[in-house]
Amino acid sequence: MKFDELFYSLLEVKQSHLCVGIDPAYDGMRPKQVISSSKNPAEDILSFSQDIISKTGGEAIAFKPNQQYILPLGFSELKELNRMIHEQDALSILDIKLSDIGSTNDACCFWSKKCGFDAITASPFPGNMRSLWESCKRQELGLFLLCLMSNPEAGTFMKSDIKGRYAYDVIANTIENEGITGAVVGATIDENDMKCISSVLKKALVLIPGIGAQQGSTTILEKFGKRSIVNVSRDVIFSLDPKERARYYKEKINRIVS
Amino acid sequence: MKFDELFYSLLEVKQSHLCVGIDPAYDGMRPKQVISSSKNPAEDILSFSQDIISKTGGEAIAFKPNQQYILPLGFSELKELNRMIHEQDALSILDIKLSDIGSTNDACCFWSKKCGFDAITASPFPGNMRSLWESCKRQELGLFLLCLMSNPEAGTFMKSDIKGRYAYDVIANTIENEGITGAVVGATIDENDMKCISSVLKKALVLIPGIGAQQGSTTILEKFGKRSIVNVSRDVIFSLDPKERARYYKEKINRIVS
Repeated sequence: MKFDELFYSLLEVKQSHLCVGIDPAYDGMRPKQVISSSKNPAEDILSFSQDIISKTGGEAIAFKPNQQYILPLGFSELKELNRMIHEQDALSILDIKLSDIGSTNDACCFWSKKCGFDAITASPFPGNMRSLWESCKRQELGLFLLCLMSNPEAGTFMKSDIKGRYAYDVIANTIENEGITGAVVGATIDENDMKCISSVLKKALVLIPGIGAQQGSTTILEKFGKRSIVNVSRDVIFSLDPKERARYYKEKINRIVS
Repeated sequence: MKFDELFYSLLEVKQSHLCVGIDPAYDGMRPKQVISSSKNPAEDILSFSQDIISKTGGEAIAFKPNQQYILPLGFSELKELNRMIHEQDALSILDIKLSDIGSTNDACCFWSKKCGFDAITASPFPGNMRSLWESCKRQELGLFLLCLMSNPEAGTFMKSDIKGRYAYDVIANTIENEGITGAVVGATIDENDMKCISSVLKKALVLIPGIGAQQGSTTILEKFGKRSIVNVSRDVIFSLDPKERARYYKEKINRIVS
């Protein structure tokens, strides 16, 4: 089954648009909101993730492990991580923002599949969106392309001009025309950009970061409705009661998209 | 010591501009030029890499492990990989094409340093080049920013228009003005683009892929001279005699840059 089919069939059962971002910041990365650490980072990261997945798995339709935070995990640990996620009837999106030439993209898709991920995130910057989508399809992986990110400087390149159109507009059109799984669109973007993107993306799923710690607006959920996958990370995984917090976000999102 | 200082001091000793790309393609990724595989991918990748590093370490000034090919390696294996590279008096550049928001970039820099890498590659697409460079400096990591890549579709976004200038021109100027370690510029780019980039990059190092399997021209080496770090991967690591092949490239490059 394709990623979007899996998503819609799980949606029937779980009634959730919440994706929990697995960003296990490590001791030394920042002053607070870090996981407890021992001499074995891979073990620390895996056990923290396991705890979060088991607590929030009933509320979340997907998890988004962030490659940069889980970099210490090796092959068997990544497989174990995805086994836990699937045990909760949730999907696993590797947030890796792949941004490379064809043969390297093939390598990423190969290992992502072997490790048990259901989809990956990627950047369109190398310009090879179509061939990247072919690589994903060969491995039966969903693909979420960066369209307009949530950070304040995202416009520099994503709003550069390509033959009279914003770069993000070219990306959104490619996603829609090629039938690519989805777009990454930050909840923090302004009204004009949102209007433009939502007028193009009529079928694709939309992975939405920026709600929670980045304080993005929930207006974007009104635009994309049932196709929204809303990522919340820090505000769930480092809360005192992750299950309760995940349920809070699930219900909050459902009130808007239903 | 900063990455460029390490590079120039090793250059005195090793007289080499060759960077060997560690792209250990796995059985199943493509029909040929793959490593031998067992039931333990991490072990296979590490032992292939060790063999290549020990054979070519005398000829190479740097190695560039490609994150997408070595994705199965965990923390202790990544540390071991870098230990082997440093044992050969070579530098280790993690080719990860980081492309994320600030807190995630921090996480990548944190783990890259902990694993023993000397530099990383990153994409300017999220627009946060300056804060990314701050993250790298905090961890004493070199940074190579994608400027104009070697794949044929690279121009779509890298030659988009930002206030009358090509995106790659904006990137090159940022690298130069901020004192960022280096730029990634494909050997396959055309003469006009090369002229523009070389007129901007006067101090930065230039990491050059595209020579070897991608058959890029060596003209670019005349432009950047001593500041060139030339990556060759497949044509060295899958040759019958990697040491001889590495020496061939080292000498070929030296004839042009000296």
